[in-house]
Parts: sequence; C-alpha cells; structure tokens
Amino acid sequence: MDVKELRINGGRLKAALEEMAKIGATPGGGVQRLALSDEDRRARDLFVQWLKDLDLEVTVDEMGNIFGRRPGRKSRLAPVLSGSHIDSQPKGGRFDGILGVMGTLEVLRTLNDHRVETERPIVIVDWTNEEGSRFAPAMVASGVWAGALDRDWAYNRADRNGRRFKDELIRIGYKGSAPCKAFPVHCYWEYHIEQGPMLEREGRQIGAPKGILCLHWYDVYIEGEANQVGPTPMEGRHDALCAAAEMILKVNELPVRMGGNMVATVGEIQNHPNSRNIIPDRVHFTVDIRSWDDDLALRAWETVRQDFEAVATRRGCPIRIEETWRVAHSPFDEKRVQMVLDTAGELGYASLRMVSGAGHDASYMNRVCPTAMIFVPSIGGRSHVEVENTAWEDCEAGANVLLHVILKSAGER
Amino acid sequence: MDVKELRINGGRLKAALEEMAKIGATPGGGVQRLALSDEDRRARDLFVQWLKDLDLEVTVDEMGNIFGRRPGRKSRLAPVLSGSHIDSQPKGGRFDGILGVMGTLEVLRTLNDHRVETERPIVIVDWTNEEGSRFAPAMVASGVWAGALDRDWAYNRADRNGRRFKDELIRIGYKGSAPCKAFPVHCYWEYHIEQGPMLEREGRQIGAPKGILCLHWYDVYIEGEANQVGPTPMEGRHDALCAAAEMILKVNELPVRMGGNMVATVGEIQNHPNSRNIIPDRVHFTVDIRSWDDDLALRAWETVRQDFEAVATRRGCPIRIEETWRVAHSPFDEKRVQMVLDTAGELGYASLRMVSGAGHDASYMNRVCPTAMIFVPSIGGRSHVEVENTAWEDCEAGANVLLHVILKSAGER
Repeated sequence: MDVKELRINGGRLKAALEEMAKIGATPGGGVQRLALSDEDRRARDLFVQWLKDLDLEVTVDEMGNIFGRRPGRKSRLAPVLSGSHIDSQPKGGRFDGILGVMGTLEVLRTLNDHRVETERPIVIVDWTNEEGSRFAPAMVASGVWAGALDRDWAYNRADRNGRRFKDELIRIGYKGSAPCKAFPVHCYWEYHIEQGPMLEREGRQIGAPKGILCLHWYDVYIEGEANQVGPTPMEGRHDALCAAAEMILKVNELPVRMGGNMVATVGEIQNHPNSRNIIPDRVHFTVDIRSWDDDLALRAWETVRQDFEAVATRRGCPIRIEETWRVAHSPFDEKRVQMVLDTAGELGYASLRMVSGAGHDASYMNRVCPTAMIFVPSIGGRSHVEVENTAWEDCEAGANVLLHVILKSAGER
Repeated sequence: MDVKELRINGGRLKAALEEMAKIGATPGGGVQRLALSDEDRRARDLFVQWLKDLDLEVTVDEMGNIFGRRPGRKSRLAPVLSGSHIDSQPKGGRFDGILGVMGTLEVLRTLNDHRVETERPIVIVDWTNEEGSRFAPAMVASGVWAGALDRDWAYNRADRNGRRFKDELIRIGYKGSAPCKAFPVHCYWEYHIEQGPMLEREGRQIGAPKGILCLHWYDVYIEGEANQVGPTPMEGRHDALCAAAEMILKVNELPVRMGGNMVATVGEIQNHPNSRNIIPDRVHFTVDIRSWDDDLALRAWETVRQDFEAVATRRGCPIRIEETWRVAHSPFDEKRVQMVLDTAGELGYASLRMVSGAGHDASYMNRVCPTAMIFVPSIGGRSHVEVENTAWEDCEAGANVLLHVILKSAGER
C-alpha cells in the first residue's frame, strides 16, 4: 500500500491509554503517577515490555529516560525522535504526557504491522519527571539530556519528604548505565494535549504551536510575627498572611497592568503556624509568569517585585525571594511547524497555528535539534485535573498526524 | 502568723513550671503538649501525683477534667475553684495555661506548709483541651461542665487524622467516671498570662480583666476551577486563591472600617491542589472576630460576609460559609474583679483594669458562678509561640495575688 494511505489503529491507541490509566488511577477518574513513585515504575515496566514486544532496542540512561530504537534502512543517519512523559501531576488526568508516548508507540506498532521501512531510525522516548510536581523543577531529565541542567544537581533534588531524586531512581530500578547526554537527532516530535481552551474555542482538531512561552518561577518567603489573635491589637501586627494576600493580588493584576500577552499565577502557598487563633508568622508562595515576550516577563517581574518590597516594608514583614527557574521562550523549527499544519490538511483535519502556554520537554529538545509539537483539543480547556479529557477521535487524529510527520521526516536526507 | 503575711514560694513555683516545661519541650524553647496526646498524659500523671502528695481528694470526670479537693472547716459549703489548663498549642509557650494550674498548686502547697485552714473547701482544676488546636472548638470540657456544650458532641470531635476525642481520652487513661456536670461553686479564679502587650506597655504587674471579648469563628470554603496555568488565559479563570486573598484583606480592614474596638484575623488557610503550575480550585480559610461589643462583632461579620459574596460572584468562585462557634462577651463578677485590684494594691503590685482578648475556661465558668481572672505580663505581648515568656517575679506576684483572693473568698459566707 501507499504509505500515504497509512492510518494508525485508533482502537488500539485507546486501549493502550486505558491500560496506562489504570496505573495510579484516582477515584475522580484521573491518575496519580508521580515521578519515580511505585506507579511510575509500574507504568515504565509495562512500557518497556511493549517496546520489547516490538523488537525495539531499549536503552535506559542514568536519568531514567527510556529510549526504544527502531532501525532504519540507513542506520548511520541520525534518528527521528518522538515521545513525551509517563509521569503525572498529583491529581492529574489520563492524557497529559502519556498521550505522546502511547501515540508514538501506536505509530511504531502501525509501521511494524505494515512492515514499513524508513530511511532513518525512529526512536521513541519517555522523559523522566516532566511534571516537576514531586521533584522541582519540571522537565529536569530532558534538561540534563540537552545539556541545560547539571546531572548531579538534578540527582540531589529532594521531594517534600526529603527523598532524593537519585535514591528514588535507584529504588525503582531505572537508573540506567547510558550517559544522559544528547546524541545526534534529526528532529524531535512531541504529541500532546493542548491543556488550554483555544482549539475547542476555534473548532479545530489539530494545533501546531509555533513555540513555547517563556517560563519564570519565583519563590517568595515572608516573615511576620506570631501572636495570640485575641489580645493583640490590629495596629502593630505583622501578619505574614495579609502581606501574602496583597502580593497574590498584585500578581493576579500583573497581566492587565503590563498590557501585554502574558499570564501570572500564584498556585502554591504555605502558611505557618496555620492555626485559627494565631497571627501567621511565616508564609511561602510561588509565582509563575509566562509570555512569548521574554522582556515583558522580566519587566513584569521587576514591577511586581517592587510591589512586594513595598508591601513588606509597609507591613513590617521582611521578604526573601528566590529566582527558582527561568526558561526563555522557545520558538520551534518553522519548517516542522508548517509540516504539522500541512499534514493535518492532507489528512482532512482543521488546524490552528498557536503558542504553547505549558512547558514541555520539547522546549529543551528545541535547543538540540529541530523540534515541533502536535496538539489536540482539551475538553473545556482543562488539564492537570482529574476530569482532564480529550475525545478519542481527536486522539486518533493527532496520532495520524504524528505518523505522517514521522514518516516524512524519517525519509528526509 | 497572720495569714495576711503569707506569701507563696516563688522558687518552688518556678521549679514546678520548669518541670512541666520538660514535657513536650520543643527545640525552640516552647512546648508541644496537645490535648489528649502522650505529652498531655505525662503532664497529667505528674500533676495527679503532686495532688496526691498534698493529700487532696482527686476526681477525674468523664471529660477528663481533673479536680483536687482540699477540705475546708465547713465542708458542706460550696468550694472555691481555681485552675486553668495543661494542654498547649502545637508550638506553644511554657506559661499559657500551665501557669494557672501550677500557680494554684503552689497556693495549696503554701497553705499546707503553714497548716492554714479555710472555711470553704478549695478545689484545683485542670480543664481538658482548652486550646482547641487539636480538637476544635477550644474550652470544650469546661463548656460541657458548664452545660453549654453537649458531652456526646464533644466526644465525637475528631482531629486532623480522624482520631476522636473520646477514643483519645480513653487511650491516655483519663476518661473518668464522675459526671461532667457543674457542682456548686462559690467562685472561680483563673490565673493566666496576659497574652497581649497592655501590661508591659503600661508598666503594671497585675491585670484584672473586667471580662472576655466575644469570640466568633467562621469557616469559609471557596470553589474555583483548576487548570494548567500556562495555557489558561487570565480572563475566564476562576482562581480560588485570588478570591481568598481579597477576602483575607477584607477581614484585615474590618476593625478600622467598623470604627469600633475589635480584632479580626485569618489564621488558617488550606489551598488545593497547591501546585505551582495549577490554578487553585479549592481554598478553605478561617475567620476570627472578637470584641467587647457583641452587636458590633455581628454587624462586622454581616458586612464582611456581604463582601465575600461580592468577591465570590465577581470571580465566579462560589463560597460556602460555616458559622463554627460564637461565644458572647463575658463580663466577670465586678466584686471579684475589684478584689483582684484591691489585693494587688495590698501586696504592693501596680495593677490595671483591662479586658481579655483571649478566650479562657473562665468564660464558661462565668455562666455558672462568680468568676474573675488574674493576669501577669507577657514579654513583648507574645503568646502561642515558643518564645512566649513571663518574668519569674511576675509569676510569683500573680501567684501571691491568687493566694490572697483564694484566702479571702474561701473565708466568705
């Protein structure tokens, strides 16, 4: 048959996704498959088994990244790489990450079914700890692979219970021997749910992000003075939670104030001693700022940081700020972005050129090789929640686009 | 000797307080002796031993309240009751509660030393779970004793780990057989640290609160919509933490806005899922409002409740409110308040008529019998924190006032 007529098996893709959704399934219909947890191990074991069933050459590197290589006619050529991540948010959904891994698996199964040979090898990948919700920061293992982050620094990241990344990697049996270091790659594809409302709002089935917004993470620590609430007059209080409340609202107002295209969010807060009759004396909260315009994001931070200082001074609550993580905006390879749009058109799917608000392993890969992504709609724009959902026909459509961009790029010189 | 010349033994009082401070001692110099914990049990065991050493008749009631009775010449007369509580905040200080129990113990030791007989019996008491930080609400056992709260309702209160009050009471061996029910009491004295800055600010050693502020507790639950922060535009978000931040500031502004004498505080907040890249979808926070003027407190709540509703509507974050606890302001027995001031004067201590911003078991006792309190200064006005402190000479002064108001009232017809 003409490879142009090739289509993936939507039923089989659905079955693989459903099988994975059982591992760490939550009562609310989502999954909890935190990086390097027992659930992550079980999902990895199943994934590796499936790779072996396809006769792929499986490699695990020292950061736990799992690669499965399907040979090409010209094995000395750099492979086409495609994949995403198996780990999830604490109460995450059944599509985030795993769709790109199972989508690529389904592409390889389809190629095997039809004994399709490609010029270049094709490598499927599961990147360790993309979410960063157990071990901050996110995308740490693709970051190390791409040379942007230090391996030993990553090894020493600890979760809230003080367990180290490296120890947990060893515990689940996925500290491989291969160096975690970029090898030559022809191009990288990542198939993912949109995690936003744009495709649904515009009525399109396929999204082709032109790149990923910049991502700035900050941690703010406020110090107040604890006291029994009843006998302590309002004047002279140093209430760390009130200071935090003012700062949180400053962050929320920032995008309107800066007049540009950006989002700014406080997602996490810890309050101490968190007792209803004691004035809070220590608050920690996070700030997340994202924009296509790196300078705008930096100016926004500078603006809100000054607001923070003013609040801290006025309330007598000193603050300490950590600039936890900064990733510049990441424009994808324009030729590959266009290939996604063209391929969607050839397959009869309505598509949309857009941006990705979420970070992905693709942003680190983009530093190493030509990279692009394929998005499919998130119902209600919802993600990182148990009700996260994507229509099965959209999952199938995205995987068909992935199949054909992989076929095209694996045939490139 | 003339009983007017009688003084307590300051060194022995200090030693008793230091012995108790070892039980649940924290690295920061405070104590953690949560109600019905193992630390509470150890402190109770020591206390009971000390009562027995004084040949007191010890009774434990079905709420775990511990009474020690010293006979009077006329044992059919209602006794004078004096005491406070042994339990502490999670990271509490070495004086809150325990000072009133050890102070009364020292008074009884002094009376025994000098073989002083009184007309009326004297009963020392340790009230179970005054703090309410493990099992809400506070002062639950004096509340049941005074007939204001239901015993079985109290038994079913659970801590954050789901452990029930009754089960924990049995576990530590302090579910006694005596009914928890008011017996005739001539008057009740409670000796306590001020927990506020007024005595220190005014340079007085003894405070005589004219009563306790009203105390209103509310719980607010906000519902938002969780979403990945990057791809979700600012418009159309339903961020429960931003809604909470607005409400927290409304609470903080309330006392100035109402123009009256009151305090209003948010001490506790829970944020869900509390992940830096997910928009918060569930927030719970507490509101604590106190005033001498019950109506003002109610009007303040009504005002801020309307603010909450407006914020909830504007942000599309529905709220649910629980009116958790309301205690009216509690004016003490004027004759007994004056007796504290007079006695302080006779002993040469500068004193201050004031109010108590903190709730105490005395507020329930005040419903049952004539009640008053004796305050001594809190250094820096600080309490419910590990650095809570009171000068030893002030501890001694307060205990001497307690000795003489007990002697006077135990001689009353």
